[in-house]
Amino acid sequence: MIVQPFATPALPPFLDLLGIAVFAISGALAAVKMRQTFVTTCFFALVTGVGGGSVRDVLIGLRAFWISDPWVAAVVLASALLVWLTPSRWWEGMLLEWADALGLAVFCVLGTAKALAYGVAPLPAAVLGVVTGCVGGMIRDVLAGVPSILMRPELYVTAAALSAGLCAIFTALDVPPAWGWSIAALAGFALRGAAMVWKIELPTYRAE
Amino acid sequence: MIVQPFATPALPPFLDLLGIAVFAISGALAAVKMRQTFVTTCFFALVTGVGGGSVRDVLIGLRAFWISDPWVAAVVLASALLVWLTPSRWWEGMLLEWADALGLAVFCVLGTAKALAYGVAPLPAAVLGVVTGCVGGMIRDVLAGVPSILMRPELYVTAAALSAGLCAIFTALDVPPAWGWSIAALAGFALRGAAMVWKIELPTYRAE
Amino acid sequence: MIVQPFATPALPPFLDLLGIAVFAISGALAAVKMRQTFVTTCFFALVTGVGGGSVRDVLIGLRAFWISDPWVAAVVLASALLVWLTPSRWWEGMLLEWADALGLAVFCVLGTAKALAYGVAPLPAAVLGVVTGCVGGMIRDVLAGVPSILMRPELYVTAAALSAGLCAIFTALDVPPAWGWSIAALAGFALRGAAMVWKIELPTYRAE
Repeated sequence: MIVQPFATPALPPFLDLLGIAVFAISGALAAVKMRQTFVTTCFFALVTGVGGGSVRDVLIGLRAFWISDPWVAAVVLASALLVWLTPSRWWEGMLLEWADALGLAVFCVLGTAKALAYGVAPLPAAVLGVVTGCVGGMIRDVLAGVPSILMRPELYVTAAALSAGLCAIFTALDVPPAWGWSIAALAGFALRGAAMVWKIELPTYRAE
Repeated sequence: MIVQPFATPALPPFLDLLGIAVFAISGALAAVKMRQTFVTTCFFALVTGVGGGSVRDVLIGLRAFWISDPWVAAVVLASALLVWLTPSRWWEGMLLEWADALGLAVFCVLGTAKALAYGVAPLPAAVLGVVTGCVGGMIRDVLAGVPSILMRPELYVTAAALSAGLCAIFTALDVPPAWGWSIAALAGFALRGAAMVWKIELPTYRAE
Repeated sequence: MIVQPFATPALPPFLDLLGIAVFAISGALAAVKMRQTFVTTCFFALVTGVGGGSVRDVLIGLRAFWISDPWVAAVVLASALLVWLTPSRWWEGMLLEWADALGLAVFCVLGTAKALAYGVAPLPAAVLGVVTGCVGGMIRDVLAGVPSILMRPELYVTAAALSAGLCAIFTALDVPPAWGWSIAALAGFALRGAAMVWKIELPTYRAE
């Protein structure tokens, strides 16, 4: 266990919790679309909101971030309550998808930066960034028994990999974090947004 | 990693291992109902018996409890052997369900108390208590490819949340553990028992 | 967290990475057989190649091995690229299955030996050895939505248990590692090989 006591990079707490709320809402929506109970809705909000960051922290050898921060669980439960009490058509349409795209890009950058801050080499740090952004949604899909976002040709994990990879590269090149992180997050967000607008898909395997 | 060397709250070891055996037996039964082999039966007994506590420990930043205690793995294997060698109709009926309800309530309380003892705030500690009681069964269901207990409207995760939440509240109010833990466990056990006897279900999402 | 700074047992690095590559290739092949994209192929290569060892390390209370070693992620990505760029019929036939059988036996021994080196008792150490060899493939199967190797009557987890168990027993008996590890790995490899050649299966549960 080589863990430096280090200032973890972070968004201003308000933005960080907002990002967790967006992911938690997407998990809660998956549950109410399956007509689940409120308790199940909370559980889906939790695994989607904190699953990716938890797996990242545990792989680095750290306590999961939401264990040390009492606000995260409160935000997750409030997100579940909000979804439970409102008509699901409020949440249809593209607003949530755009918020999710932004959350994905931002969390991939923050996850990569946190790994780098704990001494992880650039390539595994970028992998941990992708894990931060994507694994919560994968656990949600596995628990719900639906095909994972991982299995669809949409540019989702790819956008995550772009943000995480750029963050690792910019940090290795000593680009100031304010610039490097912003460009990395915007690039992944733009790619995911373009994929949503123009239905861009990656080619699938064709060699026989 | 902020881990105080702390006396972990625990049942008398005999009762603790008995609870693990109940969960392990339920995992082994899931395997033999699918006509699996003995090795697979052992694996299901393991993930069901120790899965929830392992996820709790790892999220707190601890070594999983059964890694440090050679008796746990032995009890899990003995449970699998017991199920394998006996006719499965011995295990039908309600005895195992009542034992599972008791195990659920007790482990949710112990999981919450362990998290509190390691300095986790009350709300995330209660979440970890629910994780302790429920996640082993969820991993069992995902591996078996059957719908998780999480997805059924039965009061199962809800009973877990009641026990874990009461444990966190009583501890915050400085109720003596002998009282607080017992009342918390009995409340969850009573709710789960009532749900089994009267088929109580939570309402599912209806807002449109 | 009781973690001794200890020389972790290891293969010569070249062989260790070769074993990871074999597992990563089997994960990448599962992805291309489902006609997935390149990014998904990389993700499957990753979870299959490093999943088992990661779960072992995290349960022991360690940082996952590939977080500290930048080469592992590079080998995983190269394996995914190799599979992506070559016709999948190159990989059919038995070569990959034999390589997987060898990788399984070797990683079960190494996983057990690593756990023993960190002070884990023999029985849980052998369980962690089986986890090292088998869990990556299980995560791959769950993500892909196909029945896990765990659920098939083939001697796969059994061969893993043989290698891991022999390694733990030989170490407890102070057999020199060069001998004990080799015999343990060969026994598991031979059992898995015999199962492939003669289609040996374990009996499934029949008691009613």
